[in-house]
Amino acid sequence: MITDHGVYKHLAQKNASKIVLLVMDGLGGLPMHVNGLTELETANTPNLDRMAREGTNGRSLPIRPGVTPGSGPAHLSMFSYDPVRYDIGRGVLEALGIGFDLGPDDLAARGNFATVDENGLVTDRRAGRISTEECVRLCEKLQANTSLADEGYEIFIEPVKEHRFVLVIRGEGLGGELTETDPLVTGKAPLPVEDESGTAEGAHTAALVNKWVAQARAVLADEPRANSLNLRGLAKDPGLPQFTDIYQMRAAAIAVYPMYKGVAQLVGMDVIDFEGDRPKHEIAALSRVWEDYDFFFIHIKKTDSYGEDGNFDAKVHEIEAVDQIIPDLLALDPTVVIVTGDHSTPAKLRSHSYHPVPTLFWGEDVMPDNVSAFGERASETGAMGVFHATGMIPWALGYAGRLARFGA
Amino acid sequence: MITDHGVYKHLAQKNASKIVLLVMDGLGGLPMHVNGLTELETANTPNLDRMAREGTNGRSLPIRPGVTPGSGPAHLSMFSYDPVRYDIGRGVLEALGIGFDLGPDDLAARGNFATVDENGLVTDRRAGRISTEECVRLCEKLQANTSLADEGYEIFIEPVKEHRFVLVIRGEGLGGELTETDPLVTGKAPLPVEDESGTAEGAHTAALVNKWVAQARAVLADEPRANSLNLRGLAKDPGLPQFTDIYQMRAAAIAVYPMYKGVAQLVGMDVIDFEGDRPKHEIAALSRVWEDYDFFFIHIKKTDSYGEDGNFDAKVHEIEAVDQIIPDLLALDPTVVIVTGDHSTPAKLRSHSYHPVPTLFWGEDVMPDNVSAFGERASETGAMGVFHATGMIPWALGYAGRLARFGA
Repeated sequence: MITDHGVYKHLAQKNASKIVLLVMDGLGGLPMHVNGLTELETANTPNLDRMAREGTNGRSLPIRPGVTPGSGPAHLSMFSYDPVRYDIGRGVLEALGIGFDLGPDDLAARGNFATVDENGLVTDRRAGRISTEECVRLCEKLQANTSLADEGYEIFIEPVKEHRFVLVIRGEGLGGELTETDPLVTGKAPLPVEDESGTAEGAHTAALVNKWVAQARAVLADEPRANSLNLRGLAKDPGLPQFTDIYQMRAAAIAVYPMYKGVAQLVGMDVIDFEGDRPKHEIAALSRVWEDYDFFFIHIKKTDSYGEDGNFDAKVHEIEAVDQIIPDLLALDPTVVIVTGDHSTPAKLRSHSYHPVPTLFWGEDVMPDNVSAFGERASETGAMGVFHATGMIPWALGYAGRLARFGA
Repeated sequence: MITDHGVYKHLAQKNASKIVLLVMDGLGGLPMHVNGLTELETANTPNLDRMAREGTNGRSLPIRPGVTPGSGPAHLSMFSYDPVRYDIGRGVLEALGIGFDLGPDDLAARGNFATVDENGLVTDRRAGRISTEECVRLCEKLQANTSLADEGYEIFIEPVKEHRFVLVIRGEGLGGELTETDPLVTGKAPLPVEDESGTAEGAHTAALVNKWVAQARAVLADEPRANSLNLRGLAKDPGLPQFTDIYQMRAAAIAVYPMYKGVAQLVGMDVIDFEGDRPKHEIAALSRVWEDYDFFFIHIKKTDSYGEDGNFDAKVHEIEAVDQIIPDLLALDPTVVIVTGDHSTPAKLRSHSYHPVPTLFWGEDVMPDNVSAFGERASETGAMGVFHATGMIPWALGYAGRLARFGA
């Protein structure tokens, strides 16, 4: 069942409960060989195992059967927004992630600096993964030497990390369904932005973006590595219904990477600033803001990164690092804790995958099932079965007493 | 979750993978007595058990909870078409099954020769299951002696098997929601065709069909057994979205019986001709066309036939015959194999039933679950739980790497 907001908006009620959604990005895995264990099954996780034993378990389906999620849609789904209904551009997520104050007239795009050869064919889609400092310099160069002012538009070029930047075009009449310039493989030329909506607004916006891209490539032409760029995920903020309004909770997001801050902000969560990038730093941040919020989203990135690297052992160790913060988390006396991943990233596949994600619900009023450990196969025998990720928040609200009775 | 085509049409991508959907019609069963085993649990199936052990398991729900499927809807569901949304007339399926080239203006009906008494009450709904030769003679007689030419319509009367034939009326302006003439029990008179759509087209079509039925019954009146007939499933080809387009796969159907060829053809699969009617002949046909297609639907009929006969042992043996072709199937090196049934046909009930159907998914990237055998109770503990049959193809596409990532 894909859960929507309809009934919850009317039932949500405030109380003193605290709900924690602890997300290990790309948590789900696969055995590397026949009869082997997954990353999570291999990891020594006494604290997570205890929570699984005391809680109820299952596997969450992020999008649809067989569908591998991107990070944005996978997070929206955990936040209870069906990503097939709410399709958010990557540019919007990146812009929000770097703290850009995106307005309703702004069109955002994720940019990648790239290298092209003398024929204009892409030879490196990430410009040799230039340093973030280099990225900052290139963005300043583009900001100073490109302009759409003659068309009546402001532009903002903001660095993200390494070869990644954000382009925002601000002004009235932007829109459409815009294609990306990245050919996705090397040896091909970048593509023009095209509009697939068939609207005048879309055609206008595509022309405007292409005009900027041509300027920008001319400005970059003398660069040794980042002599070109591509744009992806061109879109405006869709104006999502706000998590905080629907569920009547003050919500905080604790994440290291921009993307995840962005998606949390998009649904109305406050992004918490903190020093450091390890799970222990995130739990320290959680402690600091514990009294100020009702709901806490904690995002652990490196489980996914190691999965994408095919580094089974490092992913195992990162899961163990998360296990070690669990006592500190539980010491805060949360009412309900969900431990899950946004999707699977098996080291075996070196990529995101469609496999349902082990998920546990822990709390005083959770009905314990027969599961005795946190893992793929353990969760398969759990009480929740396979459930759509949009159901996570609603179950947590129930366990936290935050939903009024439906009818008399 | 009932899966629809929306998101998949955008994500489907081609690759070199091969997907096999092996359907044992009516596979699901029941114990004949308390503490007994089902047909599948009784059968000696070392190869299927191995696939269950290496794969992931669950039970598929063809239509809706508690609903017993007909063969057409059950197959549509496995092919990812929700049969509640896509309601296909039996006449269309039968016509396609015998290779009739059904056009967009054609109305098709499944016909049954029947016996009526002097009062016009049905005494045998199948006219004593007359031979196919007899059926051919009767169809020729009807073709020669009935006509709707004065109304501007062509008619085609085509034999199927035994007492079954197909009527096709060709011409413009046909349609409506037409009721059937078969009273479904003996001792009652056939019913007139009525239109339930309330449209002028429907009323016109019902009158036209009733006019032909009256002619046909007059022509048959002197027959000793087949002195009447009934029409069922009167409808036009609904023009389904094509499986091959949605999923970007070349799809082949390997089946012995017309009905299953028909439903496969309806969604755009190529029907493969071959000699013989045993599982080994079907696997030989599979081998022959292996390089020409990406997706293969293999249909085994007799599991269902024996179930309907109440012949528990024969159904067991047929399942074992299928188990014996598994090594040849796996020798082709398929990427993903689904083994399932379209519905249950427990010998105990001598009919189709609503019980969810044991289903296994096998392949390199399938997460193995804890199931160690292929059977009703074994699959109940599988990772897939009970899932709607429309999810089968999407999962297989995921396992085969045939779906692009959803979002960034």
